[in-house]
Order: sequence, then structure tokens, then C-alpha cells
Amino acid sequence: MNWPDIQKPTLLLDEQRAWRNIQRMAEKAHAQGIRLRPHFKTHQSAEIGEWFRQQGVNAITVSSVDMAQYFARHGWDDITIAFPANLRQMEGINDLARAIRLGVLVDSVATAAALRERLSAPVDVWIEIDEGTGRTGIPWGRVEESLQVAAALRTGAPLRLQGLLTHTGRAYRAASEGEIRQMYAETVERMNHIRQRLNQHGYAPLEVSVGDTPSCTLAADLGSVDEIRPGNFVFYDAQQLALGVCQADDVAVAVACPVVGVYPDRQEAALYGGAVHLTKDTVGMDGRPAYGLIAFPADNGWGAPIPGAYVARLTQEHGVVHIPEPTIRQVKVGDLLCVLPAHVCLVVSALREYKTLAGKSIKAL
Amino acid sequence: MNWPDIQKPTLLLDEQRAWRNIQRMAEKAHAQGIRLRPHFKTHQSAEIGEWFRQQGVNAITVSSVDMAQYFARHGWDDITIAFPANLRQMEGINDLARAIRLGVLVDSVATAAALRERLSAPVDVWIEIDEGTGRTGIPWGRVEESLQVAAALRTGAPLRLQGLLTHTGRAYRAASEGEIRQMYAETVERMNHIRQRLNQHGYAPLEVSVGDTPSCTLAADLGSVDEIRPGNFVFYDAQQLALGVCQADDVAVAVACPVVGVYPDRQEAALYGGAVHLTKDTVGMDGRPAYGLIAFPADNGWGAPIPGAYVARLTQEHGVVHIPEPTIRQVKVGDLLCVLPAHVCLVVSALREYKTLAGKSIKAL
Repeated sequence: MNWPDIQKPTLLLDEQRAWRNIQRMAEKAHAQGIRLRPHFKTHQSAEIGEWFRQQGVNAITVSSVDMAQYFARHGWDDITIAFPANLRQMEGINDLARAIRLGVLVDSVATAAALRERLSAPVDVWIEIDEGTGRTGIPWGRVEESLQVAAALRTGAPLRLQGLLTHTGRAYRAASEGEIRQMYAETVERMNHIRQRLNQHGYAPLEVSVGDTPSCTLAADLGSVDEIRPGNFVFYDAQQLALGVCQADDVAVAVACPVVGVYPDRQEAALYGGAVHLTKDTVGMDGRPAYGLIAFPADNGWGAPIPGAYVARLTQEHGVVHIPEPTIRQVKVGDLLCVLPAHVCLVVSALREYKTLAGKSIKAL
Repeated sequence: MNWPDIQKPTLLLDEQRAWRNIQRMAEKAHAQGIRLRPHFKTHQSAEIGEWFRQQGVNAITVSSVDMAQYFARHGWDDITIAFPANLRQMEGINDLARAIRLGVLVDSVATAAALRERLSAPVDVWIEIDEGTGRTGIPWGRVEESLQVAAALRTGAPLRLQGLLTHTGRAYRAASEGEIRQMYAETVERMNHIRQRLNQHGYAPLEVSVGDTPSCTLAADLGSVDEIRPGNFVFYDAQQLALGVCQADDVAVAVACPVVGVYPDRQEAALYGGAVHLTKDTVGMDGRPAYGLIAFPADNGWGAPIPGAYVARLTQEHGVVHIPEPTIRQVKVGDLLCVLPAHVCLVVSALREYKTLAGKSIKAL
């Protein structure tokens, strides 16, 4: 397939692969009696959201008030904003709380107190736990802090303490699949330890919500949790491939980029496709940071990643790709190359529109 | 200034600083009889473009066909697309070539031949030279290749060979202001060497076009060139500050971000402001990569960067900032912090809208 109508960097979507990825995760969660509340920040598309609904999903996760408003407008009525409550968006939070079942995150008494004062409709509150990643949340070992936040929540009528939530972001830094499974088991253990302590203080029932794509894909037994919130798995990407989480033919998106220069002596080509399209997240490639892997267009979308080829450098609109000899000799100006992005979520945010293999356009938020 | 109406990551613009930055560069070029053809990929805004026009600028640079179309619609009639000609956008290129004076870049006989065949209106062609950066262009030492491309261009009526163009991207990797000045002098020398050789083969007159913000800001004497194309100088950013190219009070933009978590024991706060807002370019900060510097909001916009404070980590929507003791104790959830971006051009592409200190909204492309 030569995609003659593709003129500029274009996010290609293999619908069948995405559908299969959703199906696998939905079946796994269902078989274990665990709610799948997928994170929609990855695809950010009402139309792709429907593919989840058709596979039994009716509760979702997002990462901003704006994203919650978008999906609420598209018929989703059970949404958790898995991001610390932003006190500057109380009007939007209150509007959502009146319209749907809304979940928010709290990790401090200060935020709990502000919500209690300014919320005008009921919300589900999740205490966010930091299970070791060091981003947001109450460090898992400081149970006293979780108890203080729980106490601050108990006194406020519009706040329903729903449970404990975490994101094992450190799974992305794991060195092996075994380490990812071990981190997941640790996370589940830590969360249940806190749940038990809060139960002892009269907070019950409490749910536990976990979930990231590496852990939820690799862990055969999801353990004693009530819901999982992976997002990336709908498409996967080069980072997941490098972690051993997926196979190349699970990756459901690629960015088709026009070739604008070929430099065989340095085994490089220049793409129209730069930092504003591919974004600057990286994946390790033979010890170097790469901004994506490279494949040739194929009849059914794109081929397997070209061995040893990767996006080596990015400036605003330029991408410089390394393609080893002799393959670089096949590349001509005016061709397309497909980039398997390092981190697909950021690329979707940058490009905001998919083109399916059938040629259909699907908009993202 | 507490900006009570700012709810989410917002690109603040200090108009006076931007105006002063434009004025300085316009005066410098004018005084030396050199055309300033500023790169509009930095601000990407028709309204900000008018500030340049009011200071005597009437020729501009862009980095894509889309950007050229946007500015042509807004009255600019002399535009160079400083990006290798994208053969997949010939329709757009031809439309522009019929409507305005259009410049395009060529660095191979293959592209020259394709343009000759497919152009339907005259364009100015610049042979792109790689003066040592290693991105696109003909390596400066291979004058024979430049001669071959010039010969390929001579045979085609719609192609007017305008001159030689380069971008000293390696200036961004310089270790000192002196090194930037030296790189610029080398670039000018290399470009004039090639010009002279082409002149000897009957290609004359030929212009030389150079320009990047570090060089054009620091070089007192712009030397034997016909035009300069800096872009970033309209705003500057933390990278330019780190290079010694500007002062903190020259930086004309900052991203105001809500504080959603404060973690004094690790001297960190969490911002609503992540990779999708701040982008992942970095600047060196005490030997570590930082995604931006931090300032408090102030009556006249924002204050000086907080010593030792920086954006340490970014995920999709979260930013984690390091703020040393005791300053971290002043930060509360619900506050705003201002981030001086590492690389402003990417941040403008991500956010696409400015808010001036007077509270006015200005759209970017």
C-alpha cells in the first residue's frame, strides 16, 4: 500500500488490532470478576470508545476535566478523573458531578477540605496512593496520612469514599517482564495492606483500583483488586514492545511520514515528521534513545519493524531516521515510512486524528 | 497577580517583551543592510506576525506548506518554506506559487528533477547546505554536489535559483557564547566559499541565507550574508537562557499551571501541566535534564526564576517540579506556578493559544 493520498504525517490505525487488544483485556478482567475501567487518555476518541462499549465496558478513566466533559457528552456516565482534583476547575467538576457518576482523586487533607467546601453534588472519592513511583499520592507506607485523609472525607456529605487507587508508573522502568509482574504483586499487596488498616478504623467497604498496561497485560492473576485502569493496551507502542509487553503485530498505530531527504552515506533519511508530530518520548534502541521504530508501508498497513532502524533525532518538523545498509538504498524522496511511536498516548494528543486502514478518518478530542 | 480565571495550563505572553525582542533584531539587521526573514514557526500566529510587519518585516520563513498557506491567507506574499520540498504536497506548493512569491529548499538532484517536472508556477529555489549540523542539506564540503543540483535547477523554467541557505542547528549544542559566535563565523565563511565556487561556474547572483536565534542574537557583525532567519528570539526560552543568549527578563512567555499536589518532604509539587502541555525538550540544570524553569506569578506577569527550581519529570498530564526548601513551603494546592519552557516553539505548537498580560486571547495556527 502506497497511500498516495497521504501528504503529511498521518496517524494510521489498524482497527482489527485495536479491537483484538480491547477484547483480550476485557476477557481477562471479566474472567476474573474485575471491573475494567480503561483509561481513555490513550485514544481520546468517542468513536473508539464505542468499541469498548461493544465489549461490555461501561465505566472509564480519563486524566482531565476536559476529557471527562467530552466523554460525558458522548454518553459515558461513570467516569473517574485519575488525576489529583484540580481546585481551579470546580465549576466543571460540579457540572459533571450533577450529570454523571464522577470519581475524583485526593491525596491531601488540604484538597479534601477544599472539595468538601466547594462541591455541590456527590462524587466518588478515591484516596490516591503512591505505591513507589514518586509522582502523586500518599506514600504507601504512611498509613497514618491515608487515615487522616479518610477522616477529612468522612465529614463531608458530597464526598463518598470509594476506595484506594494507584498507578504503578515505575513498571515502565522495569528491566524485565518478571520484574513487572513482581511490581504488580507488590502493588496489590501494598494496597490491600492499607485497605485492611482503613477497614480496621471503620472505613468499609473500600475498593482497590490499580492498573497500567505493562502489569495488566503481563500479570496472569490480577489478584485482590476491584478494578483495573490500563489505557495504552488499546494500541501498544515501541516502549511496550521494548518492555516485552506486546509483539510487533499487536501495535495498532503508526505514523506515516513523507521522506524528504535521503543520505545513504550516513545511513539516514529525513522525514516530514518532527517533534510536533512524533513527540520526544524515547525508547532504548541498542543503548541509544530512539523516538520510534521504522517500518515500510505494506498492503495490509505496515510491515515488521526494519531491523536496526529507528528515529534518531527530532527537531520541530524534521525527523532523522537511521536505516542500515543496504535497506537505506531502497528509500527515495517522496516515499512514505511508517514510524511506530515510542509512546503512543502523546502522539495521539499531538495529531488528534486517525486514518484507518480502510481510509476512514476518526477524530480524537 | 493570581490570575483567578486560569483553570488549566495556559500560555502567558508578555507583549512588551516580545515587541522589544522583535525591535532589537529588526534594528540589528536593518543597520547592517541585511534582510530579516524571521521564522514564524515559533509564534505561528497571524496577530503576532503583524507586530513584525509594523517593524518593517515583509518577508518570512515557515517550516511547512500548511504554515505557508496560513500566513499567505493573512496577507504575507513573500514566504520561504525552510524545509526540504515535500513532493507529496505539490498541489499546495503549486497553489502557493501561483499566489505569492514562494521559496522552497532543495538538497538533491532527485528533488530538483521532481520539482522541475511537477511545478506549474515559478518558485525561488534555495540549495540547502549542511554547514555541519547533520540534519538535511548538502554537506558544505561537497561543492560538486551543490554544482550538480544547481545544474539540475538551471534547466527548469519555473525554478529560479535564488541562493544558498543553511541553519546552524549545532549552535544549540555550543558550550559557550564564544563558541556560538565562532560557529556563526564558520558558517558564513563556508557559505561564501560555496557561493564563490558556484559564481565561478556561472551561477550569479546568488544570495546567502543563514540564521538561528543564538547566532543572530550574539554575533555583533552578521557578516557577508543577504538574509537572516531567526525565529525563537521573539520569545526566547530556558534553552536560550542556558546558552547565554538572553536574560531572564527577555523571556516573553511562560506556562501558568495549577498546583494539584505539594510534597514538601521530597521538595516537590505536582502541576496540572504535563508532556502534552510543556513537551519533552530539556535544558541542562545542575547537570540534570529539566523540562523548564519555575517562577511565581507576579503583578506584572511572573517573577524571576526561583533559584534551583525546575520541572523534573513529566508524564502525559502531570508535571513534577523540584522547589528547594524553604520555598516549597510557600506552595499550596490551587496556586499557580509559571513554567519558563525549555523550548518554546514546541510548547506553542502544543497549546496553540496565548493569553496576554492584559488578558487578551491570541490564537496560533
